[in-house]
Amino acid sequence: MSDQNKLMVKQVLDAWNAHLASTYKLFNELPDEQIERQVVPGRNTGTYLFGHLVAIHDAMFPLLGIGDKLYPQLEEAFIKKPDKSELEKPSVKELRTYWGEVHSALGTHFNKLTVDEWLQKHTAVSEEDFVKEPHRNRLNVLLSRTNHLAYHFGQLAFFKN
Amino acid sequence: MSDQNKLMVKQVLDAWNAHLASTYKLFNELPDEQIERQVVPGRNTGTYLFGHLVAIHDAMFPLLGIGDKLYPQLEEAFIKKPDKSELEKPSVKELRTYWGEVHSALGTHFNKLTVDEWLQKHTAVSEEDFVKEPHRNRLNVLLSRTNHLAYHFGQLAFFKN
Repeated sequence: MSDQNKLMVKQVLDAWNAHLASTYKLFNELPDEQIERQVVPGRNTGTYLFGHLVAIHDAMFPLLGIGDKLYPQLEEAFIKKPDKSELEKPSVKELRTYWGEVHSALGTHFNKLTVDEWLQKHTAVSEEDFVKEPHRNRLNVLLSRTNHLAYHFGQLAFFKN
Repeated sequence: MSDQNKLMVKQVLDAWNAHLASTYKLFNELPDEQIERQVVPGRNTGTYLFGHLVAIHDAMFPLLGIGDKLYPQLEEAFIKKPDKSELEKPSVKELRTYWGEVHSALGTHFNKLTVDEWLQKHTAVSEEDFVKEPHRNRLNVLLSRTNHLAYHFGQLAFFKN
């Protein structure tokens, strides 16, 4: 039973890491000037999607209760506001650094969490609600973020031929 | 422990069902004529992505060892060949029917599988390899297909304003 638990958590983590690696590989292959362009005409730029993913993943620290955001300044420009806002955005070069820092720190935490800890509530749900809705746990955040990543990775794939 | 197992399987299933529902809702909102168009200029049509998702999900029956494909004829046009092949494709109207049939039948099976059954090997891995790689189980197929769905759903979202 306990082995099954560990296996399932590992599988969810592996899926997250695999998608992170694919997205990182794509960003690495693309020059900054291309990432600055719209993914398809009239849609979000690669810069916006890049910053959006970093900001959403950075927000996992407080949501999972494992720390503070490394780059809280990203929230306004990349989560609250759309690409077309007048807000100043960091360069692709800076985003590459942020991406590395956020995922390196997340990975360190993720590797230390036990199965029980993965199944503890995330911070956006109250103790009372969690009793009724035990699926609102850390593991669900990871599942959900992996799918969110896959969603935008599908869009970023339009940068390639 | 056993409760934790069930909870984790339920969470993976819930994520699958949530993405299916979102994609179904999008296809339902779009008229056939729009789905027949390219998602973005020069890229796959909605018809191709629709058929591709149905075909990939239909292939889960044999891959999970729970039955035969309902529409084996879709594989050639929607998996093996790209959109631009000369192969005849079913209409969007037909694909809507196939989508319903495949997911209804899959859902019936999924709701009956126990945790142990979810953690049994899928049919594309040998008994010997499975001993060394126990993550190559049915649950991993479901995780992987959910992310694949999210990937293409991100592209289909370009149909919307």
